Amino acid sequence: MKLADLGEFGLIDRIARRVSPAPGVLIGIGDDAASVRTGDGRVSLLTSDMLVEGVHFDLTTTDPVRLGRKSLSVNLSDIAAMGGIPRYVLLSLAIPPTIPAEFVEELVGGMNGCADRFGATLVGGDTCASRRDLVLSITVVGEQTSDRVVSRAGARPGDLVCVTGDLGESALGLRELQAGVRVSPAIDRHLDPLPRMETGRLLAEAGIPSAMIDVSDGLLADLGHILERSGVGAELESDLVPLSPYFRETAGRYHATPLELAVTGGEDYELLFTVPPAREAELRRFAAGMSCPVTVIGRITAEKGLSLRDRCGTPVVVAGSGYRHF
Amino acid sequence: MKLADLGEFGLIDRIARRVSPAPGVLIGIGDDAASVRTGDGRVSLLTSDMLVEGVHFDLTTTDPVRLGRKSLSVNLSDIAAMGGIPRYVLLSLAIPPTIPAEFVEELVGGMNGCADRFGATLVGGDTCASRRDLVLSITVVGEQTSDRVVSRAGARPGDLVCVTGDLGESALGLRELQAGVRVSPAIDRHLDPLPRMETGRLLAEAGIPSAMIDVSDGLLADLGHILERSGVGAELESDLVPLSPYFRETAGRYHATPLELAVTGGEDYELLFTVPPAREAELRRFAAGMSCPVTVIGRITAEKGLSLRDRCGTPVVVAGSGYRHF
Repeated sequence: MKLADLGEFGLIDRIARRVSPAPGVLIGIGDDAASVRTGDGRVSLLTSDMLVEGVHFDLTTTDPVRLGRKSLSVNLSDIAAMGGIPRYVLLSLAIPPTIPAEFVEELVGGMNGCADRFGATLVGGDTCASRRDLVLSITVVGEQTSDRVVSRAGARPGDLVCVTGDLGESALGLRELQAGVRVSPAIDRHLDPLPRMETGRLLAEAGIPSAMIDVSDGLLADLGHILERSGVGAELESDLVPLSPYFRETAGRYHATPLELAVTGGEDYELLFTVPPAREAELRRFAAGMSCPVTVIGRITAEKGLSLRDRCGTPVVVAGSGYRHF
Repeated sequence: MKLADLGEFGLIDRIARRVSPAPGVLIGIGDDAASVRTGDGRVSLLTSDMLVEGVHFDLTTTDPVRLGRKSLSVNLSDIAAMGGIPRYVLLSLAIPPTIPAEFVEELVGGMNGCADRFGATLVGGDTCASRRDLVLSITVVGEQTSDRVVSRAGARPGDLVCVTGDLGESALGLRELQAGVRVSPAIDRHLDPLPRMETGRLLAEAGIPSAMIDVSDGLLADLGHILERSGVGAELESDLVPLSPYFRETAGRYHATPLELAVTGGEDYELLFTVPPAREAELRRFAAGMSCPVTVIGRITAEKGLSLRDRCGTPVVVAGSGYRHF
């Protein structure tokens, strides 16, 4: 069978079904990070992401410092989505002969700056040759107490669906790059995303979210992951999806339906989470004190499926539902 | 600067110098695995290895089951070299369009069989597309009590230099594959190495080794890593280097100097360790009870440098000193 027929998540499902449960594993394959017991009621959060030249990045439009920073940020975002605190980083690099030593040093420098900012330390990894493409693989180990970790599986009917920041700028930035633009706020968002580390941890430690994920595949696809793992559905109101002024001004030049770009584009690295109605007041107080906005964009339903409607209740039809790897 | 001029270990040194020490990190960059504190006097051991098509493996001479098993084994071997117990595995795959879903499932099946055998569990990772080459990156998290972990840095003058099993068969197997042979004991060793998990852990828990590493780059290169980290030298006796009957019979057909192949070939995944003279009797008792042989091949010296002599004291000159990635 071709991987294109099975799809990335079909493949992950097949892999997960081959693995037997083990005593120390609280959360295994299929969440933002694995959660494994380490003693004293604490857990390690384990996550890996691979970035491949020509698939995840283009060396003609980024630079080593931003590439190093982004490679770590996308992993940190997974730790944020579990409510964890990042601690240790492993970096593996497959390096083609065209890459000079200075490039690698700048890449590591970018990554280290990001690690320092969020309290994590590079402790190991691997370096080897590659015939053609530069490949980075990063593993981050985070920690948290086991009762504070937020998985994708806890959403319940009636919960509010919330998202931090705004969506679509990263996808817009990619379109701009492809069109030859080299500098814009959206390009910065795409090449140099900022993980919502503090917001994820504070939300989790306040016990507010019932489920959480980071938006990497696109709002609809990532909400789909929460719905599937939680066995519920959701109704979103399209007019509530947070869009930046720059996105609203510019996206129409690159996409016929800007909203579609915002909800399917991906790589936003915002946090998408659900909140029980009983915690709504607390969420509002929490959001008022945060540096990043939090927007309620819909509700979890008992009926499965994901519906997107505008403020008049008219269904909004969206083509595509997130990035497909295969 | 070209990476070829700096070399893999020069690059790793430069990376390591950019990282500031952090409180929880007992052993950072530059050992078989990092050792980080988790509480209760225990540590997590963290190690990553990347395997790249055309560099580490050739899809025309291996199969997905053995590739999956080897990819994990080489990581487990790093945990064995610290004296640790493997617990959790993260697998990241960059998959080119030519690879069918069944290949990936068999690869994961091979890896899982190996994980089960050694008590580890696959808990996560990443899957993505690759334009051309298949790339695997595996991270293993192991554990041990902090006082039992064996680093590369503890060798002292007078310590015995010991190695498990025998050396050179993996390198011989690679030569056979390159010459068109498809089945031999040495090819099995090359494509399907067995990490010395139990031996590494038992040695560490008995407190016998002062320093330990697994032989992946070749005996001389890996002993060189111990010497450098420990600030000492060593004298090895070439006639004591353990060679299998198959190696002794066959290696002359593929290499003018079989001993050279044995001490520089690499990918043996045997354990190389040093033992204080006061623990020699204990080592002998320990070795007698083990399933794999342990051979004393030399001594650590205060004078730096690594000398290799035959039983008459004649210096043995060896070309090359292990695999060079760049």
